Amino acid sequence: MRIIGIDPGTAICGYGIIDVEGSRLRPVAYGAITTEPKDSDAARLEILFNQLSDILEEYKPDKFGVEELFFNRNVTTAITVGQARGVILLAAHQQDIPIYEYTPLQIKQAVVGYGKATKDQVTYMTMNILGIREKIKPDDTADALAVAICTAHSSHRDRLKRRIQL
Amino acid sequence: MRIIGIDPGTAICGYGIIDVEGSRLRPVAYGAITTEPKDSDAARLEILFNQLSDILEEYKPDKFGVEELFFNRNVTTAITVGQARGVILLAAHQQDIPIYEYTPLQIKQAVVGYGKATKDQVTYMTMNILGIREKIKPDDTADALAVAICTAHSSHRDRLKRRIQL
Repeated sequence: MRIIGIDPGTAICGYGIIDVEGSRLRPVAYGAITTEPKDSDAARLEILFNQLSDILEEYKPDKFGVEELFFNRNVTTAITVGQARGVILLAAHQQDIPIYEYTPLQIKQAVVGYGKATKDQVTYMTMNILGIREKIKPDDTADALAVAICTAHSSHRDRLKRRIQL
Repeated sequence: MRIIGIDPGTAICGYGIIDVEGSRLRPVAYGAITTEPKDSDAARLEILFNQLSDILEEYKPDKFGVEELFFNRNVTTAITVGQARGVILLAAHQQDIPIYEYTPLQIKQAVVGYGKATKDQVTYMTMNILGIREKIKPDDTADALAVAICTAHSSHRDRLKRRIQL
């Protein structure tokens, strides 16, 4: 099974694709889609939408994981990230890829086993689980891979649950 | 010149299309795209994107007006409306329609001539300017037509300004 994790954003949108083989997770491709502040919001959203659509077509993931958005303060940021999230969800849905959403707590729990883990701990464990040696850059890419790991673990847990229910 | 105004939203997205003939504004088509709460965010965004894209293809507006988003309190609403706004801007940009954004103040000023006008005053003046007799429903549609009027007035002002500069 192939999973893509996404960390939404208009300036930088991280993506991480992994393959699940039994209990092993293998990185397939990861990186970030970036857009320029000099372009209009609409132009940047189109670049994001087109590039993500291309990635989905090329790698054909079976599941699409994305972080649930929570903001405490900055409403302007919430709108901007919301706009990016809108075209990202659209790209996944247009290609019929089931979407899974997780809270930051669930992601940290899945990757580090501890809901209050720091950003560095999450990146460290993400690299460890996926056997990646070079520091993953930017942070958005590491976050996207963490979402992919969380999606994989949740699928595994769901399968176990079903087996117990049978 | 043909103008479309949009009032973004996932549950209800108002649209209003008008033709500008000299100083006369004529309504062409107006209504609202609605989606069901039972559907997923992604499914609702796709319905919104597809229906708006169809409307843009059918009516081929020359300009696309939309309200700038301001929120004081509810961040969850900001994300949801942001998501809708993302796919709306994408639809306009994909069809190469120039996008114009206005603050609520600019829209009230353009329609009523008074930045602190009430919602009812804006609706009343919108109907008056466009010669619409039946109360426009829902509010989102009336708001969308008000944005279209604001876009038309701004274009007119820009032309006047250019003429003065010549």
